[in-house]
Amino acid sequence: VRLRLLGSAAGGGFPQWNCGCANCAGLRNGAVAARARSQTSAALSADGERWFLLHASPDVRAQIESLAPLAPRAPRGSPIAGVLLANADLDACLGLLSLREGTPLVVVATRRVLADLRACSFARALERSTGPVEWRALELGESAPLDDEGHVRVTALPVPGKPPFYAARAASPEDNVALVLKEARSATSVVWAPTVARRDAALERALRETDLALFDGTLFRDDELARQGLGPRTARQMAHWPVGESLPWLARLARRRVLVHVNNSNPILREDSPERRQVEQVGVEVGHDGMDLL
Amino acid sequence: VRLRLLGSAAGGGFPQWNCGCANCAGLRNGAVAARARSQTSAALSADGERWFLLHASPDVRAQIESLAPLAPRAPRGSPIAGVLLANADLDACLGLLSLREGTPLVVVATRRVLADLRACSFARALERSTGPVEWRALELGESAPLDDEGHVRVTALPVPGKPPFYAARAASPEDNVALVLKEARSATSVVWAPTVARRDAALERALRETDLALFDGTLFRDDELARQGLGPRTARQMAHWPVGESLPWLARLARRRVLVHVNNSNPILREDSPERRQVEQVGVEVGHDGMDLL
Repeated sequence: VRLRLLGSAAGGGFPQWNCGCANCAGLRNGAVAARARSQTSAALSADGERWFLLHASPDVRAQIESLAPLAPRAPRGSPIAGVLLANADLDACLGLLSLREGTPLVVVATRRVLADLRACSFARALERSTGPVEWRALELGESAPLDDEGHVRVTALPVPGKPPFYAARAASPEDNVALVLKEARSATSVVWAPTVARRDAALERALRETDLALFDGTLFRDDELARQGLGPRTARQMAHWPVGESLPWLARLARRRVLVHVNNSNPILREDSPERRQVEQVGVEVGHDGMDLL
Repeated sequence: VRLRLLGSAAGGGFPQWNCGCANCAGLRNGAVAARARSQTSAALSADGERWFLLHASPDVRAQIESLAPLAPRAPRGSPIAGVLLANADLDACLGLLSLREGTPLVVVATRRVLADLRACSFARALERSTGPVEWRALELGESAPLDDEGHVRVTALPVPGKPPFYAARAASPEDNVALVLKEARSATSVVWAPTVARRDAALERALRETDLALFDGTLFRDDELARQGLGPRTARQMAHWPVGESLPWLARLARRRVLVHVNNSNPILREDSPERRQVEQVGVEVGHDGMDLL
């Protein structure tokens, strides 16, 4: 089984187009020790032939070109069989609309997430007769095969989150999940949890047993945005458990733990920051684009 | 006045994620003499301080980072004041949804194009209270100022095209326009016409008088896609006048003529192709990312 992290930043990427914070400005002018990052996504394959994307970020076009095995092997077609979504946030799903060129795809998510996507008029572009998308719903807590051979199975575990801003509707347990992926032959398991609003007992059980946790690394502190003059909202209001608080918990779980969905304001992006050292000292890694994790 | 071509390819870019045609495969393995291209967009400024994007392509994030004057000069904010759209095709407008981080923007297009965008549920992400988008409608044929000082004026000229696939509605003259931009102090004019389905008399008059024409270079031949096994549709069915047919007409118009919105299948992308020579011999240029045109 292979898993490559294609992107590791939160919505907006790093640097972000309208952000001149110390991290973004410092990255642009070379004053901080940090890597540029595209928006969070990963590519997973059991056999190296047939691939699934975990999230289709707005940066999906460049992300696909960054990994050679994702290139087509015929005049039209793609080794990418489908896209899995943990939620319907735009930074997780907008790239779907860049995969509209008539090649069949399966989109795997909860019924509520699929409904949010299909309510978008732009999504009709995915339903051309020459290569329609198959929308495949996951039932919460039920394992489903990703391929006919059953090499990889996925379970959607409800996790504290919120509906996307644009959906303008009441919250549902299907809004945000952790995707628990199990590969049969190697008995490898991965938990994809880029958005986690707070501690959760079921997620804790899943993380205890897993080989690899890709976990919410959005903000380090609850008031990080306000402190830097970047906006009024707290991490909790945005449904992200601050890393400074989740860290002792996460450090005791999973064989390997990698933070993803890291916001441009987060001090862990700076390779020489005290916060980065604090994370690494307890054995948690900060994800970066191009990391081969399996 | 400054104008930088940020992207020059048609929808999907070059190479395109699901395309293994001779051009795309050749670009990936280095076998063809060609440059990679992101999706068509340009940045325009009268004073170098305040900028407008012509189209917000799906590649907008990387495109903004590619031009230093577009970087923010404060913790939050942007020198980008607005986005102008010639149509509501996804490759022209999808990037708007990547500009949703709470910085005010004006979106300038015909009423019909604005209605198609606002009918998309995802567009609610642009209407946050902290930085709402202003949707500004252009009346066909009427000149409107882009700034309070009136340095730049824009006129939407109806041009043969079609409604976007996702809109699933009857055609309107407001579906597709050429944007005629005039800068007062330097008396410079630019025509932005990335989609032109066929010869048109009013467009011919506008192009005759202009300094710079950015013109539909999508496909070279009407049956280009079918010939290469890339799909059943002709250039005309996609509302693109083939370059091989428009070329003698275009070559007599405008002071400078640059082809944009070039599809990955188009032989003019290969710097040593007979078609590329044919274009250049009559004084028409093939646009590429990063070209400074004014």
